[in-house]
Amino acid sequence: MRAQAAYDELIRRARQESLVASCAALLEWDEMTYMPSGGVEHRAAQLAFLAGLQHQLATDPRVGELLAELEGSPLLADPLSPAAVNIRELRRLYDRAVRLPRSLVEETARVCSIAHQEWISARQQNNFALFRPWLEKIVGLKRQEAEALGYESVAYDALLEEYEPGVRSQDLARLFDALRRELLPLVGAIAGSGRQPDVSVLHREYPLDRQRAFGAEAAAALGFDFRRGRLDATAHPFCTAIGPGDCRITTRYRLHDFSEAFFGVLHEVGHALYEQGLAPEHHGTPMGEAASVGVHESQARLWENVVGRSRPFWEHFFPRARRAFPEALADVTVEQFYAAVNRVEPSPNRVRADEVTYNLHILIRFDLERALLAGDLKVGDLPAAWDEAYRRQLGIAPPDDAEGCLQDGHWSSGLIGYFPTYTLGNLMGAQLFARAAEELGDLDRQFARGEFGGLVEWLTRHVYRHGRRFPAARLIEQATGSPFDHRPLVRALRQKYSELYGI
Amino acid sequence: MRAQAAYDELIRRARQESLVASCAALLEWDEMTYMPSGGVEHRAAQLAFLAGLQHQLATDPRVGELLAELEGSPLLADPLSPAAVNIRELRRLYDRAVRLPRSLVEETARVCSIAHQEWISARQQNNFALFRPWLEKIVGLKRQEAEALGYESVAYDALLEEYEPGVRSQDLARLFDALRRELLPLVGAIAGSGRQPDVSVLHREYPLDRQRAFGAEAAAALGFDFRRGRLDATAHPFCTAIGPGDCRITTRYRLHDFSEAFFGVLHEVGHALYEQGLAPEHHGTPMGEAASVGVHESQARLWENVVGRSRPFWEHFFPRARRAFPEALADVTVEQFYAAVNRVEPSPNRVRADEVTYNLHILIRFDLERALLAGDLKVGDLPAAWDEAYRRQLGIAPPDDAEGCLQDGHWSSGLIGYFPTYTLGNLMGAQLFARAAEELGDLDRQFARGEFGGLVEWLTRHVYRHGRRFPAARLIEQATGSPFDHRPLVRALRQKYSELYGI
Repeated sequence: MRAQAAYDELIRRARQESLVASCAALLEWDEMTYMPSGGVEHRAAQLAFLAGLQHQLATDPRVGELLAELEGSPLLADPLSPAAVNIRELRRLYDRAVRLPRSLVEETARVCSIAHQEWISARQQNNFALFRPWLEKIVGLKRQEAEALGYESVAYDALLEEYEPGVRSQDLARLFDALRRELLPLVGAIAGSGRQPDVSVLHREYPLDRQRAFGAEAAAALGFDFRRGRLDATAHPFCTAIGPGDCRITTRYRLHDFSEAFFGVLHEVGHALYEQGLAPEHHGTPMGEAASVGVHESQARLWENVVGRSRPFWEHFFPRARRAFPEALADVTVEQFYAAVNRVEPSPNRVRADEVTYNLHILIRFDLERALLAGDLKVGDLPAAWDEAYRRQLGIAPPDDAEGCLQDGHWSSGLIGYFPTYTLGNLMGAQLFARAAEELGDLDRQFARGEFGGLVEWLTRHVYRHGRRFPAARLIEQATGSPFDHRPLVRALRQKYSELYGI
Repeated sequence: MRAQAAYDELIRRARQESLVASCAALLEWDEMTYMPSGGVEHRAAQLAFLAGLQHQLATDPRVGELLAELEGSPLLADPLSPAAVNIRELRRLYDRAVRLPRSLVEETARVCSIAHQEWISARQQNNFALFRPWLEKIVGLKRQEAEALGYESVAYDALLEEYEPGVRSQDLARLFDALRRELLPLVGAIAGSGRQPDVSVLHREYPLDRQRAFGAEAAAALGFDFRRGRLDATAHPFCTAIGPGDCRITTRYRLHDFSEAFFGVLHEVGHALYEQGLAPEHHGTPMGEAASVGVHESQARLWENVVGRSRPFWEHFFPRARRAFPEALADVTVEQFYAAVNRVEPSPNRVRADEVTYNLHILIRFDLERALLAGDLKVGDLPAAWDEAYRRQLGIAPPDDAEGCLQDGHWSSGLIGYFPTYTLGNLMGAQLFARAAEELGDLDRQFARGEFGGLVEWLTRHVYRHGRRFPAARLIEQATGSPFDHRPLVRALRQKYSELYGI
């Protein structure tokens, strides 16, 4: 078989697997948005069937044959050509998929599906003991998974690879320690400042239908294409790509909370701009996919925080917000509002954390989940270790386990190795933005005029259109001309918050 | 292999095929309700993939082996047992599926998908010539399909079998002729009556959100279970079952039209009560499916017309309608309203036809599509034949082809042999209702009190829970104690309209 024919068949198969995944994505979206409660059992059966089918396609020996035929082929001559990138990435995915025994995949899916329900009850009842046996099972299964996948020195790296290919926890730990050394004094200085913004204005009454309309207006202004997407309400905000012309975001609305829904929209718009900016001709292949979970998150955090909590953004949007919510905002100035949406305050909750303390929440989880997987921390000792870490690093004590080690659903869903991608996203987003601002010159003035197309175009050219051509760190270096590190984020936070807090 | 093991595997496979079909059903529902326009191309790819997968499962030679092993097995001893019914029906479906060459299935799908778009344009432009070559192709493909499937004497019967197993067009023609002989004089007498209701009240202003709420209230009152279903708005009303606990209906709302949305809801609720009343333990097998398209339609027409356009129904709902729409209905009496929703008037349009003339629209289509398939009528001569039939049977001339032979999308979708199920549904619905009313005694008083559970329970027991145990005509005979025929419908229409029109 000629290499081109083998490649064409490989791509056809990759696209078919992606098609199956996209059917599952729609079923999951529907489950979160419109499915009646009576549909839950059948939906689980549908999703299990599609997951099984996807696994079957991913591990089909024919894929291995095709990849073997393509070894040393002329298609690999230019390692950055779409064909070479696709072959490299499909090889990586195939090797991972076939290493996992089907029984382990199914057992993990089964345990996590129960564990997630148990976690919900445990959190509601503030009772860690209920969740403990399930977390123990999950940690055990994830250890087996890491052993099956293989790793160089640390089992955790085998799991991390799923979200951030090529990243090693040792390097991450070094990066995160450097970040922590900068963040702790900044948090301390902000807490010690005499200037503290009044956030009560964000908790006035914001009618839900107007929140929806205002969020949609902002999404469209940032570049979210509603002909190729939708915005709905769900219990937890998310973004899902159903197909190249169909990317859906959600948020949640509360009457007395401006921030949650609005910044939720901006966050998901960030994810969606990435999806809507991927090369449509490569859809269903690695060249048409996001580079990593961290890079994906970088776009969410960039649009939510770097853009959406900037002064020029609110110079443009505050007059519009005042028209949308005249009762709530008539007596508020843009400066007061800008300060309120940037209030920094250590709190026990990650999701509601500001952009300065947020990363400390992640670093704590990164340390704890590595210790759990390595066996250095017993699941039974997790609540105490959690509280101790919060006291030491954020200077606060979680009121209980529900707002402590039970607050996130990631571990109950089997996501170990995922948390670091949030901080990687913050770091990458800051570095990308700093470079875009340098190259584009007057981003602040563009934002103040409500123009965001220049930034979208820059990101599309330097990030979105590359798909998985580069590993994440190299993508950032290519885009910015500097090695990936923590300094751009630290610089940006220092500059913004020293001015805001007069420190 | 023991028969029980073969049967278990057969059922497992049937359920898997049903699971794939249910994924497609959700994707189709989403396409009609919430999908952004940019998603259309990818959605077509998803649906084509699932259709291919379903066909592959349906024609898997293993199914043939299992069915062969089950021949003469003790499981068939009682032909009405669930196992015997499932084996009989799966055998019928498998034999049909394997007779169709995959190339023909794919070519028909391809042609119909273009033809349907062409039909939309042709209707918009009132230009039959645009659609003619596509209808010629479709008629040709359906002839090939009939030849591949096989038939006793008339090719049309092979297509009819898809919707009404066991029914022959010769018998249908006899039944329909008898019905026509009764309907024509009834329509004439109504047209000649001096008493004609004022329908302008139905075209006052009905705010859309209150139409939605009122429709949902009626749906719930009739027994539609919103925990296991939803109601949405679409361009064309439909009902789709995603799973045993998830049945969704839609309708369309227009500000100056009470009837379209409301009776659309009742119609789809009829379909939905059938789906929600199927035996959940048999879901995914023939014992858990509707007996035929005609029986399904009988439930839609029964709840829309026999119940929903009855006087006792409006005795209960009219005061509620007046509260929902005080501006539109303050000066209207229940008698005026009841007469308005039962106005009989020959018109060129099937979808908006009243329950008396409706069947004449169907009988015309039944005659024409049989003539097209047999080659007795050339596609090019269809417009003239259509107009001639409307003049002769309904006494009216369609204003143009858009409101004439281009009005329905069935043929463009490859549905030939489907139209008769509408009239079969009307006939079956009337016969079932007459018997239920006899057995239950005081249905009128129950309806006037807003109680519909007695009728739902009767239908569940006599129709829904049987799944595909009986062929449609035998199901009706079992349920009513009389052979299936046209007289119950004629009797019901005569009684209702002689009183309404004083004839």
